[in-house]
Amino acid sequence: MELVYISIGLGLLAVVYGFVTSRQVLSASAGNAKMQEIAGAIQEGAQAYLNRQYTTIGIVGVVVAVLVGAFLGIVPAIGFLIGAVLSGVAGYIGMNISVRANVRTAQAASTGLQEGLTLAFRAGAVTGMLVAGLALLAIAVFFAVLIGPVGLAPNDRIVIDGLVGLAFGASLISIFARLGGGIFTKAADVGADLVGKVEAGIPEDDPRNPAVIADNVGDNVGDCAGMAADLFETYVVTVGATMVLTALLLPDVGDLLLPLMALPLLIGGACIVTSIIGTYFVRLGGGTNVMGAMYKGFIVTAVLAVPLIWLVTQYALGGVGIDMGTVLNPQTLAAGETATLGEAPMVEFTGTALFGCALIGLALTGIIIWITEYYTGTAYRPVRSIAKASETGHGTNVIQGLAISLESTALPTLAIIAAIIGAYQLAGLIGLAYGATAMLALAGMVVALDAYGPVTDNAGGIAEMAGLDDSVREKTDLLDAVGNTTKAVTKGYAIGSAGLAALVLFAAYTADLGEFFPDADVDFSLENPYVIVGLLLGALLPYLFGAMGMTAVGRAAGDVVTDVREQFAGDPGIMAGTSRPDYARTVDLVTKAAIKEMILPSLLPVLAPIVVYFVITALAGQENGFAALGALLLGVIVGGLFVALSMTAGGGAWDNAKKYIEDGHHGGKGSEAHKAAVTGDTVGDPYKDTAGPAVNPMIKITNIVALLLLAALAGAQ
Amino acid sequence: MELVYISIGLGLLAVVYGFVTSRQVLSASAGNAKMQEIAGAIQEGAQAYLNRQYTTIGIVGVVVAVLVGAFLGIVPAIGFLIGAVLSGVAGYIGMNISVRANVRTAQAASTGLQEGLTLAFRAGAVTGMLVAGLALLAIAVFFAVLIGPVGLAPNDRIVIDGLVGLAFGASLISIFARLGGGIFTKAADVGADLVGKVEAGIPEDDPRNPAVIADNVGDNVGDCAGMAADLFETYVVTVGATMVLTALLLPDVGDLLLPLMALPLLIGGACIVTSIIGTYFVRLGGGTNVMGAMYKGFIVTAVLAVPLIWLVTQYALGGVGIDMGTVLNPQTLAAGETATLGEAPMVEFTGTALFGCALIGLALTGIIIWITEYYTGTAYRPVRSIAKASETGHGTNVIQGLAISLESTALPTLAIIAAIIGAYQLAGLIGLAYGATAMLALAGMVVALDAYGPVTDNAGGIAEMAGLDDSVREKTDLLDAVGNTTKAVTKGYAIGSAGLAALVLFAAYTADLGEFFPDADVDFSLENPYVIVGLLLGALLPYLFGAMGMTAVGRAAGDVVTDVREQFAGDPGIMAGTSRPDYARTVDLVTKAAIKEMILPSLLPVLAPIVVYFVITALAGQENGFAALGALLLGVIVGGLFVALSMTAGGGAWDNAKKYIEDGHHGGKGSEAHKAAVTGDTVGDPYKDTAGPAVNPMIKITNIVALLLLAALAGAQ
Repeated sequence: MELVYISIGLGLLAVVYGFVTSRQVLSASAGNAKMQEIAGAIQEGAQAYLNRQYTTIGIVGVVVAVLVGAFLGIVPAIGFLIGAVLSGVAGYIGMNISVRANVRTAQAASTGLQEGLTLAFRAGAVTGMLVAGLALLAIAVFFAVLIGPVGLAPNDRIVIDGLVGLAFGASLISIFARLGGGIFTKAADVGADLVGKVEAGIPEDDPRNPAVIADNVGDNVGDCAGMAADLFETYVVTVGATMVLTALLLPDVGDLLLPLMALPLLIGGACIVTSIIGTYFVRLGGGTNVMGAMYKGFIVTAVLAVPLIWLVTQYALGGVGIDMGTVLNPQTLAAGETATLGEAPMVEFTGTALFGCALIGLALTGIIIWITEYYTGTAYRPVRSIAKASETGHGTNVIQGLAISLESTALPTLAIIAAIIGAYQLAGLIGLAYGATAMLALAGMVVALDAYGPVTDNAGGIAEMAGLDDSVREKTDLLDAVGNTTKAVTKGYAIGSAGLAALVLFAAYTADLGEFFPDADVDFSLENPYVIVGLLLGALLPYLFGAMGMTAVGRAAGDVVTDVREQFAGDPGIMAGTSRPDYARTVDLVTKAAIKEMILPSLLPVLAPIVVYFVITALAGQENGFAALGALLLGVIVGGLFVALSMTAGGGAWDNAKKYIEDGHHGGKGSEAHKAAVTGDTVGDPYKDTAGPAVNPMIKITNIVALLLLAALAGAQ
Repeated sequence: MELVYISIGLGLLAVVYGFVTSRQVLSASAGNAKMQEIAGAIQEGAQAYLNRQYTTIGIVGVVVAVLVGAFLGIVPAIGFLIGAVLSGVAGYIGMNISVRANVRTAQAASTGLQEGLTLAFRAGAVTGMLVAGLALLAIAVFFAVLIGPVGLAPNDRIVIDGLVGLAFGASLISIFARLGGGIFTKAADVGADLVGKVEAGIPEDDPRNPAVIADNVGDNVGDCAGMAADLFETYVVTVGATMVLTALLLPDVGDLLLPLMALPLLIGGACIVTSIIGTYFVRLGGGTNVMGAMYKGFIVTAVLAVPLIWLVTQYALGGVGIDMGTVLNPQTLAAGETATLGEAPMVEFTGTALFGCALIGLALTGIIIWITEYYTGTAYRPVRSIAKASETGHGTNVIQGLAISLESTALPTLAIIAAIIGAYQLAGLIGLAYGATAMLALAGMVVALDAYGPVTDNAGGIAEMAGLDDSVREKTDLLDAVGNTTKAVTKGYAIGSAGLAALVLFAAYTADLGEFFPDADVDFSLENPYVIVGLLLGALLPYLFGAMGMTAVGRAAGDVVTDVREQFAGDPGIMAGTSRPDYARTVDLVTKAAIKEMILPSLLPVLAPIVVYFVITALAGQENGFAALGALLLGVIVGGLFVALSMTAGGGAWDNAKKYIEDGHHGGKGSEAHKAAVTGDTVGDPYKDTAGPAVNPMIKITNIVALLLLAALAGAQ
């Protein structure tokens, strides 16, 4: 129990860091009146959007909570509500600090690059630490209450269902936030670009463009609030799934059960400490290498995590290296028998093996970051090939961008496969879970890097609109340039860890199946055609989901274009710069469109597993229904991984190809190549910021709904 | 044996039809001297390309044949050579008739629409019937020789390996032809469009454009020769795999074995008869509904196939309705035991059940055609939504096109899933095989519809370049308008049937595994992490392959642009229309580029299964090597199906959205919407004509190489 309390303490530490740092950020100068007016408009728009979004989600949430309560009991329903509310809170706080830090960063950048960097990064760090801290607290406190005051055993079915409910709440809210925010930000961005840059020929962030405030609002509600909710969800699901899997697969480890279930929490807590330390190393050290400063912070966090994870493992398990016995799959095992996991060789593991798996997770994070930078950084072949292809026009730019987006899936997949094999050979399925947990433990730092992006992006916009000196915009551009890469990095990281986490959830599904339906002889073999049917249906989901997201952005962006055209036509003074466009009207329009469009796709992963189970059961019996459902879960992972990786990396590459050209290559700004690159950037926008990242929570919702369905079916028996 | 001879007779009938009809086509007037000169240049370019392509492929082919001979024996090597040579022949003949029919169609269209349609469609029918006829003859004659003069049993291992070798030869050549032709055609097309339509502002097929002949050559070497080789391959693999699966899964049916192995050949033969009849129903009947005329031909073919397949089944099996006994999986079965296929319930089937499965195949073909027309026809929402999105620019056009391409995978996948479930419930894995066979039996008609496309496309080009009256171009445009849809239809059909055929090949893999390595306890369960690793690696292949194809087109198209710009700059007389551009130089450039670029991606599916098997075996033992390899095969199917469907339908939709705008919607030709639509069309080109369709042979090569690897490993034991 003490271990859980330590975790809670470390979670609180993150929250304290967040509050202290946010006070520092808020105490900085907010610039002149003009700047504050603009920032106020952005703040107001973002607030209005989030209020409406969370009201809508709240209605869905309450309905789902009642259903969870009715089918699964009160504890999972409470878990669901905690997950849902805290996921929303994480997004809310992140957005709130972001819309206040933007103007202060613009002001700080007028002093110097380091000042701007410090302010923007601190704002990001607030979001990052609150995401990690709140996620850790959510699980640890809920767990502590259930096994403490309530008095349940750590592997009691109610505890397991409660943790799954918690994960479901976080995931469900996060898919809405990711998708709604994603649609908002890209509809506004694409619409503003099309009608501003392409049609009217005015620069980005020009205050004459009525969509410019909506665009800046979008950065905050999508890239900040949506992303924060997403990573909160990924954290809760991964750590929760590791605990659940431990409870399901290791029923006979005796006194080691509680330490083993608490260890993932401790690893999370340890990395909060190293992340906090890491934030103080994000410094330029004289030059202008912003990405280098970011890396310093990340490397310090990851390297310090190694000894600290070793220490907490040793502390929790009473000495690393003690053989904690064979991992047994309860599903196939009578007491005392030796067993196999699936048909694979029996796996025994030690604390050292778990530590090894955690190292694999840390290494995978580093490798994915490196690969993502290769595919989205301006210094390497992929982005430069897109920039070069822009010379021959819009078409070749898009073709090359699509080629890169397809190609970019290869190395991350190979890295993930290597991690799966390595972790599995060390400690079986539990090893996979620890690898994923260690990845997510770094979330505080990774989110900090990401949440920094919208702050600097907004800062540039405010500098532009407020008519600050060009030198300020230059500095904010320098700060913002790494934003595309850090954003792509976070998404690659989130989807990579989601792949591992989803495999853990799938293992939980099969384990649950054995526990709930011990007599069902479910054939998960590829030779069973219902498995193939399930794989195909699963792989279809991300495609359909992506199609819906892309269509939504296209449609909403079209509305923005129409609105802006009307504003320009209705009042020629806008283009002349003599009258102020009606920013709020555009914000309002995008808000309504985003909320309307987010509902249907978000329900797809909730309903699909239920429909598939019942249809296949009706056609071919319950055992094939279970088999098809299980295969659907893997199909979503396999299909979704590629869709998400290709979209997020491809979109980042397109965006930076445009930036590369704007830096004076291939004819620079205003050239034909630049126009082609703007098209590519536009195409990449919904890829990387709407459809792609939302696949991540989608994969997990599908898996979690399947777990809940099993529990509900077992209860109805 | 008589049944096999009948099939051979029907195969010969197709060849005779081809020769007779080609004489009719060639006897038509070839137009004036100017037209003949242009057609001559296209002919020459196509000939030169194919010669060089097949020389290169020939070298690879001989090396592979020697390897097949060394590892697997002389019969598979002979089978490989037959498949390879005839695949090449099918492409060659198709291209040859196509490059002669184009100019004659232009001439015939000056008489009337029906005349043009008749000529172009007959040319397509020659290719179609030769593809189906040669494919049927290749298998039937090879099979007849092996079980007749050579004296082997129908299910002798040598016969099985021979049929697999035959399929491998056809597939390997076809992937080169599909990819090489696809790169050629789209590099020329994209390059010509970019530099002609977009930069120089001259219309499509303007003789001043140096890339115009290369573009027309591309239609023939890609859409005709490449497609013919592809469908030849699909036919051989599907029918061959059905025979192989019958031999592997039904060892105990006694005298029924030969009839059961001959039945797929007979179904193919029967549909050749109905296809020939169908070709005479492709008539306008007064109006201008070209698509309607096509449908008449297809519907007659498919409807007549129903009673004829019933008859041949009855004839072959000695009375439909006789219970042919239980399908037993030899792998898990000792003599006399009842058994299960995998863990699924045991399947018994009758001749009526096989007939039912064939009906499912026919119905699936019709449904896929209908869905494809919905997604690529100008009369429906998808294409119109892309056209509408073009109004707001290049970016929204591409976004909406990508959304449609993602969405377009859903209905075909659901239809394929329904077919899998239906066929499996009727007759297990054999049922799936019969469904696929019936689909492919219609290949003669489907290829006819497709091969018609490049003829009319070329005819329009020739009419334009030869300065014929505008009314002629209008007629060829009318004929060509359905070309995008029929091309998309064939690809959807090919990939849909490939999905089923690949499942049959996977079943052959597991059956082979049981026969070759009876002691190996291979766990294909989704709970085995090496299965997940295999699935991920398999799903990666189409992405990587697609990336390579797209990159190749982008690069080669860039070369074309550079070349044309140089020609324009070097001789201002070209644009003035006073001097003739150097067409041959551009053709030569594209030829070299296409041949160079096709090699590496084509080897990917050959090498991947071998590498994966050996690496996983080294890491985790042979049983996991087999499991990962099997999962890789399914991963390729699952991943490839979506990549191919989305690319082919999306590309067709983009192309027709442009055509829809050119018909006077959203501002018509020359409007901003039209420019955006041209970009979308350019992007869709390599999607639908290079990367997408080549995924089809890629899927099957991966599966066939795995079968050959098993045989080689067994031989080395």
